[in-house]
Amino acid sequence: MRRDATHSCVISQQEVQSFIERCLTTVGAKPHHASSLAEVLVTADCRGHYSHGLNRMDMYLKDIQTGVCAVEGEPVVEKESAATALVDGNNLLGPVVGNFCMNLAIRKAKEVGIGWVVAHGSNHFGIAGYYSMQALKENMIGMSFTNTSPLVVPTRGKERTLGTNPLSVAAPAKHGDSFVLDTATSAVALGKVELNERRGDPIPDGWGCDPEGHVTTDPKSVLTGGGLVPIGGSEATGGYKGYGLGMMVEVFCGILAGAQYSKYVRTWKVTDRVANLGQCFVAINPENFAPGFNERMSDLLSIQRDQDPAEPGSPVLAPGDPERLNMKKCEEIGGIPYHINVVKYIVRTEKCPTLSIQLLPCDNVVSV
Amino acid sequence: MRRDATHSCVISQQEVQSFIERCLTTVGAKPHHASSLAEVLVTADCRGHYSHGLNRMDMYLKDIQTGVCAVEGEPVVEKESAATALVDGNNLLGPVVGNFCMNLAIRKAKEVGIGWVVAHGSNHFGIAGYYSMQALKENMIGMSFTNTSPLVVPTRGKERTLGTNPLSVAAPAKHGDSFVLDTATSAVALGKVELNERRGDPIPDGWGCDPEGHVTTDPKSVLTGGGLVPIGGSEATGGYKGYGLGMMVEVFCGILAGAQYSKYVRTWKVTDRVANLGQCFVAINPENFAPGFNERMSDLLSIQRDQDPAEPGSPVLAPGDPERLNMKKCEEIGGIPYHINVVKYIVRTEKCPTLSIQLLPCDNVVSV
Repeated sequence: MRRDATHSCVISQQEVQSFIERCLTTVGAKPHHASSLAEVLVTADCRGHYSHGLNRMDMYLKDIQTGVCAVEGEPVVEKESAATALVDGNNLLGPVVGNFCMNLAIRKAKEVGIGWVVAHGSNHFGIAGYYSMQALKENMIGMSFTNTSPLVVPTRGKERTLGTNPLSVAAPAKHGDSFVLDTATSAVALGKVELNERRGDPIPDGWGCDPEGHVTTDPKSVLTGGGLVPIGGSEATGGYKGYGLGMMVEVFCGILAGAQYSKYVRTWKVTDRVANLGQCFVAINPENFAPGFNERMSDLLSIQRDQDPAEPGSPVLAPGDPERLNMKKCEEIGGIPYHINVVKYIVRTEKCPTLSIQLLPCDNVVSV
Repeated sequence: MRRDATHSCVISQQEVQSFIERCLTTVGAKPHHASSLAEVLVTADCRGHYSHGLNRMDMYLKDIQTGVCAVEGEPVVEKESAATALVDGNNLLGPVVGNFCMNLAIRKAKEVGIGWVVAHGSNHFGIAGYYSMQALKENMIGMSFTNTSPLVVPTRGKERTLGTNPLSVAAPAKHGDSFVLDTATSAVALGKVELNERRGDPIPDGWGCDPEGHVTTDPKSVLTGGGLVPIGGSEATGGYKGYGLGMMVEVFCGILAGAQYSKYVRTWKVTDRVANLGQCFVAINPENFAPGFNERMSDLLSIQRDQDPAEPGSPVLAPGDPERLNMKKCEEIGGIPYHINVVKYIVRTEKCPTLSIQLLPCDNVVSV
């Protein structure tokens, strides 16, 4: 499908990966750290989560250039049992800490059926789903959680005292199929509200609240002094459930790990001080439980997908299916379709003035 | 506060406990099994969750009288590691299985920091919060999950292929304070829809859908062929997040434990066959992670509770606070306030024709 060749372009995954690596090492990151970050961002873009991909590279570059995020050293285990670990992320890039912890959790799950690893001293780790999905490679259930900058107002409150605190759970089915839940515990991401504001559109009831804590349809008041509301929206529609889930993520992250938490996490996009995020990584080995896990998982997915949809032509999806469709599309066109402005912005960014990125031949141009 | 002495009465916790025990043993339950169930139901009533308390005793009695739920034997560990266990609940009462599993999880968490225990062959276990809260006594984080009869329609679907699949997470703060999240992954409980239908009131948008899978405000169409929708309501307001969380609970329960799952779980209130529910119980020992857990938990709770509320006089609550207020009220009046019809219904039930229940003196009568 070609709609407007001037607005989009396709870049191969390898090229995006190597471009991000070059940018990161240029500002001082170690090659294997740069590679870890690049892989998380490329995965986000392939899965269609552009808000967490190449588009956000400058945030990581800035953190390293200003010295707010460290480039030396590796994460360190501070406390450990057969099934648990507390890790000091040593203020390294989030994906460096995330990979270290998830690998450790998987090793423990191989030994004793479960690994529950938490880290303090971490940074923004990209999409939570990247880490939970590492467990799929070992035919295990994976989970990941992170706290984030305060943006969410609790039910009945008017202060931003929780982050969008995402959680991800991945579980393997047969033949490479899987369940991948990757969701913020806020009703929506801040980016969605920003998009409506830029377009001059109101937001649906149940996305955000104004500075007085009242649910509003005005995106501007959400962005200036108000905040996002938890999954479920207002109290009447069950927002207190999402609020509780957001706190649960904080308990597993900042509270359990002894990192920053709640309103003490630094303000979103303000990188005046070390983030010291708390994160949690879990692997569970189905072999320690009832035989036939993969078969039941496949059946559970089929039960949802194969039912008659409410709207013909709009089939019931399992968590992870929209992302799977995106990855298939990228495979078919041989790269990741980007809006040309994203690429221009990234390539021209002052942080990497001498770097260029290789676009695929025009034939591959598609609409995004 | 006395409003209408004819509509309510107070019964001491001890009396409710002993009444339920007497009813259960009369139909053949072992005394210590009856006691386990009674304690869960009394706890639910004290916490204000009347839908899961004495009011539901006849369901358990019927299960035992018809032989659909077993009275002989104890739960058995089928597979075990230092941190995990798979338990066969042997079709015993849910609380018997739940207590067995939660105690096992706590013992493992004392040894290796975490215990993750799943059970098949279980039955309805009452409020999920009862089990997660057991961990608080050991200053640990507790979690519990159960699958339930299919009542929830997945986003974009029109079939009831998931239960209300509740989850509970409890975490200890200082001086006996705590965080207790106990929530279904549906937007609301079926009982709320039934209540509106009985009153002739519409339901809010985002509680349920009609038989064609469209979100509706007509409670009757939810109850006759439609279903509940997940936390978040419609797709536009984020219902797919609640749908994913409901599936997550099923992964931890029916899928991991090898129990019934999804649409195969028996229909709600139809006890024609063994339930074979799947349940999951987790204990996490904060001592295996960063020091100062209780202090941070208390602070996290204070940050939420102490902020200026959106509506003066309607303070921000932490998960578990409404239940704490209810327990305090019960303590003050020396018992549990019940609507008189609930007591009449229960005492007159054919199942226990010869049993009576001791009401407290009239002075204690309060409105409920």
